[in-house]
Amino acid sequence: MSDKKLTAVLLLTCDDQKGLVSTISNFISEHNGNILDLNEHVDRDEKLFTIRVSWDMKDFAFTREELRSKFRPIAESIGANWLINFKEQKRRVAIFVSKYDHVLLEILWRHKMGEYPIEIPLIISNHEHLRELADHYGIPFHIFPVTPETKAEQEKRELELLEEHDIDTVVLARYMQILSPDFVSKFPYRIINIHHSFLPAFIGGNPYKQAYERGVKLIGATSHYVTADLDEGPIIAQDVTKISHKDSLKDLVRKGRDLERLVTARALQVHFERRVLVVGKKTIIFE
Amino acid sequence: MSDKKLTAVLLLTCDDQKGLVSTISNFISEHNGNILDLNEHVDRDEKLFTIRVSWDMKDFAFTREELRSKFRPIAESIGANWLINFKEQKRRVAIFVSKYDHVLLEILWRHKMGEYPIEIPLIISNHEHLRELADHYGIPFHIFPVTPETKAEQEKRELELLEEHDIDTVVLARYMQILSPDFVSKFPYRIINIHHSFLPAFIGGNPYKQAYERGVKLIGATSHYVTADLDEGPIIAQDVTKISHKDSLKDLVRKGRDLERLVTARALQVHFERRVLVVGKKTIIFE
Amino acid sequence: MSDKKLTAVLLLTCDDQKGLVSTISNFISEHNGNILDLNEHVDRDEKLFTIRVSWDMKDFAFTREELRSKFRPIAESIGANWLINFKEQKRRVAIFVSKYDHVLLEILWRHKMGEYPIEIPLIISNHEHLRELADHYGIPFHIFPVTPETKAEQEKRELELLEEHDIDTVVLARYMQILSPDFVSKFPYRIINIHHSFLPAFIGGNPYKQAYERGVKLIGATSHYVTADLDEGPIIAQDVTKISHKDSLKDLVRKGRDLERLVTARALQVHFERRVLVVGKKTIIFE
Amino acid sequence: MSDKKLTAVLLLTCDDQKGLVSTISNFISEHNGNILDLNEHVDRDEKLFTIRVSWDMKDFAFTREELRSKFRPIAESIGANWLINFKEQKRRVAIFVSKYDHVLLEILWRHKMGEYPIEIPLIISNHEHLRELADHYGIPFHIFPVTPETKAEQEKRELELLEEHDIDTVVLARYMQILSPDFVSKFPYRIINIHHSFLPAFIGGNPYKQAYERGVKLIGATSHYVTADLDEGPIIAQDVTKISHKDSLKDLVRKGRDLERLVTARALQVHFERRVLVVGKKTIIFE
Repeated sequence: MSDKKLTAVLLLTCDDQKGLVSTISNFISEHNGNILDLNEHVDRDEKLFTIRVSWDMKDFAFTREELRSKFRPIAESIGANWLINFKEQKRRVAIFVSKYDHVLLEILWRHKMGEYPIEIPLIISNHEHLRELADHYGIPFHIFPVTPETKAEQEKRELELLEEHDIDTVVLARYMQILSPDFVSKFPYRIINIHHSFLPAFIGGNPYKQAYERGVKLIGATSHYVTADLDEGPIIAQDVTKISHKDSLKDLVRKGRDLERLVTARALQVHFERRVLVVGKKTIIFE
Repeated sequence: MSDKKLTAVLLLTCDDQKGLVSTISNFISEHNGNILDLNEHVDRDEKLFTIRVSWDMKDFAFTREELRSKFRPIAESIGANWLINFKEQKRRVAIFVSKYDHVLLEILWRHKMGEYPIEIPLIISNHEHLRELADHYGIPFHIFPVTPETKAEQEKRELELLEEHDIDTVVLARYMQILSPDFVSKFPYRIINIHHSFLPAFIGGNPYKQAYERGVKLIGATSHYVTADLDEGPIIAQDVTKISHKDSLKDLVRKGRDLERLVTARALQVHFERRVLVVGKKTIIFE
Repeated sequence: MSDKKLTAVLLLTCDDQKGLVSTISNFISEHNGNILDLNEHVDRDEKLFTIRVSWDMKDFAFTREELRSKFRPIAESIGANWLINFKEQKRRVAIFVSKYDHVLLEILWRHKMGEYPIEIPLIISNHEHLRELADHYGIPFHIFPVTPETKAEQEKRELELLEEHDIDTVVLARYMQILSPDFVSKFPYRIINIHHSFLPAFIGGNPYKQAYERGVKLIGATSHYVTADLDEGPIIAQDVTKISHKDSLKDLVRKGRDLERLVTARALQVHFERRVLVVGKKTIIFE
Repeated sequence: MSDKKLTAVLLLTCDDQKGLVSTISNFISEHNGNILDLNEHVDRDEKLFTIRVSWDMKDFAFTREELRSKFRPIAESIGANWLINFKEQKRRVAIFVSKYDHVLLEILWRHKMGEYPIEIPLIISNHEHLRELADHYGIPFHIFPVTPETKAEQEKRELELLEEHDIDTVVLARYMQILSPDFVSKFPYRIINIHHSFLPAFIGGNPYKQAYERGVKLIGATSHYVTADLDEGPIIAQDVTKISHKDSLKDLVRKGRDLERLVTARALQVHFERRVLVVGKKTIIFE
């Protein structure tokens, strides 16, 4: 795609100081970019400046390669954490699954509808179950059975495959294995998991059973980035749904499935549209 | 009020067995009651029968006094836990407060609107702050300052006052003191607290700060019966609201206030309308 | 399936009169049925009695054929509208589609998950578009192209096909044709449509455009029974979602799709589980 | 208050053109303002540029009087509709009421909690009912009984009173009179009404009865600016709540009251915080 047809997206955070919006918007307009959407906020308690700005590159002075190098000195002068990407440049996504199909189907259907600016070159699983679904959507399906003995070796092979396909983001769509810290470190804030609970309540295994026994009136689901601390990564999206005493454990699982699909869909949308900035242990979502 | 104008409400739970609905509905119709609302459910996993039934006593054969003694042998024959009350017989409620006015105002306003079948003979506080609000609604306001040294003595005096006014239910409307197990045992499942968090997440002090630091995308509030286990009593109502990175800690407190009012209002409504049955550590809410 | 393994479901409405619950529950328990769930309510303004009761037929005295004939005299004596069905007896469902796949996929996936007690012997469409999806789920797909000239003839052939397959319920899953009053009359309260608006707002064509131009802050979707009055049939389920000025018309369509899937799923669940009773122009949903 | 302690808020819309964010942010930073929050969006279909930006005036070069005159030439050069206000400069609000207290109480309580940057110099009513509530919160209460004959004269006197008190915004808190077009024209987009329905459904009188009769599953409330077209003004906030067949008309009224309080609270918050821009018949809400 010609660089002229791109929309650039800058995500940036730094200590607050005067003139930051001017500095950034001048860089864009002086090089003939047209700002389409800008969302800036200063957290006065933390003195933290955060911004997401997107602009049309139709008449922009730089190519996408030049853009990053031209912006770097500015970012360095203000001590910023920053990322520049392009809305139309599709992120390359690998989906990891086990046996449950609902999250995978949700992603593949939305992808087919054109809701996400992504490509899905492959699906990785530790079981055969979802091969037919992958085939229906025309996505190559790779099996890596995992046992405690083979885990390290299999992860190594998976990583090679991800590298070979230039994968940007890994989505764990009810993948029932825990990735090693080494694997996780290769994709900082680019592995997304769905946890079937309103975190931090009911951390760990069988949250629906925990919820049922505690008699809560709402169950939830949480999508978060995977970090070395299990279930403690920055939260991207959460939602809840009502339950009553007429709901059996089986009903909770059914309602939970609907939540997991919905929360995954929202989390992926903001991640893929470059609306998420991680600051410390939290995310900032630019709606 | 004449017994003829009453609506009886039976709440009952026992092991499931055949013919229970017949037994109960025949008791009512044979004595000329007209069933207005009946909600029955069998939990097939737990083999537990639960029912709430209300009927018009216009032509009923028994007075309210007779009703309980006539029903007792039936309840005993099926091994039931049960309660019979009357919708129009107002529950006598004491509200405990400290300095925050929002939950108290919500209750007093709804009471004035006639939303609750209750009387509020008194408000108890450990501070002077809310006296003017109590006065505006014409409710006697009693101060019992509490220190670690005086707590046992003050609770004793409070209990005397509650007994003197024939209090049925105690509502802790952001009362910032923990009641002793002895006090709690006097009002089994008749003390209602509001916790400013989605339990069981963020148990304990300063839940908004915990939520802020964990970066959750929803904050919640929970209304529950007070038992000897702090924050572990059966949950009556819960709700959540969305938050974003633009919300400061102060915004969370404001949004939390709104949730606390809403969740308290719902919990009190079902409690006052005799729609709550406690089974083990959980509530069953008959909507 | 043996009648002994069935769960009977009675839906009934009539003018309120004393002893109705007794009459019905005695009929069940005297013939050795065990009531599993009963939800009864009297609308005191309308003096209308409504009930849904389900019971286990394991030890029941009658077969499913006998049950209806034995209950008929009772129903007639109280002047009731009533239906008896069996939870495990699968409803036979035909789905009508045009080009949009989202509602169809939602139904087929939930069906495959076992969420609905139904069989889907066929899908009818006026276009080829969704044949591959039908094939993937193994459902026969029939094309009936419709033009103003051929409509009457095609509906006749469709009705023959529906009769041949003993179809109980027709779901219009974004079927872009209006059925004739004659067709509709063959399936009273057994044709379900999804309208992409919060009825009665934005009746008629292009509701998202209407919503966009009016600047509403919420868009909705409504599932209803089809009657001769277009968009005026009894409402089964509704929901809404928030929108903002950043949402383009295309975003409204995307958010609307999600709503349509969700609202259809809820409406079908209560319809298939025999939780819906139509009274006048309204539905009563027994949750 | 010293101008140095103010936070300026600019709302602006114009045809999209390159460099607008730079132009605006440079104006601010060149005069030593620190931008705290900026939200900009271009509607590419309508080619419409919209922005809300707030900045700290601690070191700003201009006083509040100078600011507007200095910015005017810039605004004129880009053909903008614009407003500059100051977050800490309290809007002066008059509340119009009749007999219902719930919306008034909600506003007064939130005002007392410090949630709104406003002053309330007076309440106007056509009845005596809510005098005591006004007194409790210490707000002067003025009675203007209205009959068809006296309406024109009374409105004239009301306008004089509003002018005398330098009123900025009028809130109709269930005021049961229709204001004349002449009155409305004096406060363009500064009169806020709450309509007890999800507009545009159930326009006009008795919407709960209409909703009850249509059998909808949700009822709503809408807060909007008052224009000469009744119930057609730009919508500020909307919400809905679930209802069921067990809800009587009286229950709908109760649930509606809760909605009206909630929706009013949200609409006033965004209006008072200068987060609302009216474009054509719609509002843009900068969250």
